[in-house]
Amino acid sequence: MRNIKIVLEYDGTYYAGWQIQPKFPTVHGALSDAVGKLIGAETKVIGASRTDAGVHAMGQVANFLTEAIIPLKGIANALNALLPPDIAVRQAEEVSLEFDSRKDAKSKTYLYRVLNGGFRTALFRDRCWHVMQPLDIGVMQKGAGLFVGKKDFSSFRAADCDSLHPMREIISFTVTGKEDGFIDFTVKGTAFLRHMVRIMAGTLVTAGRARITLDDISAIIEARDRTSAPLTAPAKGLFLKEVEY
Amino acid sequence: MRNIKIVLEYDGTYYAGWQIQPKFPTVHGALSDAVGKLIGAETKVIGASRTDAGVHAMGQVANFLTEAIIPLKGIANALNALLPPDIAVRQAEEVSLEFDSRKDAKSKTYLYRVLNGGFRTALFRDRCWHVMQPLDIGVMQKGAGLFVGKKDFSSFRAADCDSLHPMREIISFTVTGKEDGFIDFTVKGTAFLRHMVRIMAGTLVTAGRARITLDDISAIIEARDRTSAPLTAPAKGLFLKEVEY
Repeated sequence: MRNIKIVLEYDGTYYAGWQIQPKFPTVHGALSDAVGKLIGAETKVIGASRTDAGVHAMGQVANFLTEAIIPLKGIANALNALLPPDIAVRQAEEVSLEFDSRKDAKSKTYLYRVLNGGFRTALFRDRCWHVMQPLDIGVMQKGAGLFVGKKDFSSFRAADCDSLHPMREIISFTVTGKEDGFIDFTVKGTAFLRHMVRIMAGTLVTAGRARITLDDISAIIEARDRTSAPLTAPAKGLFLKEVEY
Repeated sequence: MRNIKIVLEYDGTYYAGWQIQPKFPTVHGALSDAVGKLIGAETKVIGASRTDAGVHAMGQVANFLTEAIIPLKGIANALNALLPPDIAVRQAEEVSLEFDSRKDAKSKTYLYRVLNGGFRTALFRDRCWHVMQPLDIGVMQKGAGLFVGKKDFSSFRAADCDSLHPMREIISFTVTGKEDGFIDFTVKGTAFLRHMVRIMAGTLVTAGRARITLDDISAIIEARDRTSAPLTAPAKGLFLKEVEY
């Protein structure tokens, strides 16, 4: 028996997220189909993160057990031939049988991308959140720092989040202005609640527009109440960048 | 009468190029429709470059005459509301009545993007040419230099190119390796023949794979014969970056 770990890139635009659903195309569903076709047997594909509908990935990690004797490079090439064009295998390696891509994840890094400026984008229309109003990057950088540490993130979880408890640790959170008006929010944490990155990004953008202050962000964190936080940033700006083990 | 100059970004994936065709969607067709709806009258929209099917733009330039009294910002916002999501107006300005976006272009800058590496990409699948074989960037940089200057580019024009003569001047041509395996070919010239950038990119990649030498590139230029040059790089890796006036 072998345990195969793969790193996946995908464009989440046309998927109802990672997790298999009966009626809609999902990334996990497409990957499970491709793996089944390749190894010719049923196997369970485990994924590190259940990304939402419309969310993208550069570094989703999955693993599956197989008895198939196929070289690693062949597994990656065959999966890339079997998968649809908007899902790609970027790496494949053989890992110990105990490795579990979900349970063994030490931390995850997400990128949230905003396009700030008066005009919308055509080339990146499904890959960022277009915010027309001027944003103060300095304020958003200070605001991002308020999330760092081990905290109760009850104000930053979706109503249907099924996590057992709301304690999470943010290891780092940076905000960087890029060329052409793009602003990258990069957040690394041990784990995340449902919609947590998107609610934090929505909160920071609201502060960047001077609609709330840094003190308001602290108060929203303290409130431990979802209704205290402003909008959830749209899914299309979110990328699962990396899973660390 | 006013002359409005606009800068356009578009994703060319689903268009049969810039130029209006009777049966297929084109960028010029979509833009002419939007302009007609906004100004409520017939006007001729002139474009700087007739990009091919599947070719993208960050900086296509167009202009049109109108008697409509609409503020510039309103023109840009209204066109962005009327245009499909894969075409966007990024700038609008009023210019002198004599300005012609095609005839007055002093030079154009194109970007050709290659993804070099064993695995294909999902997020950039329509925005680059994936080349699996290792490429020697140093060789391609030297090769790019061979194109600089005023030359007869007969070896680098499509069979159906309708230009009157094959003399063109390349002002600069750089090749830059970027993070994640992307390689950017950036070429600035006074004007270009049909498929010229894509044939030059295909030639450089062939040299980067060590299938031809730098001397071969010089010989291909000297030959002044399209059949002497190797493949035409695919349209999806090409971007019209800027038009200079």
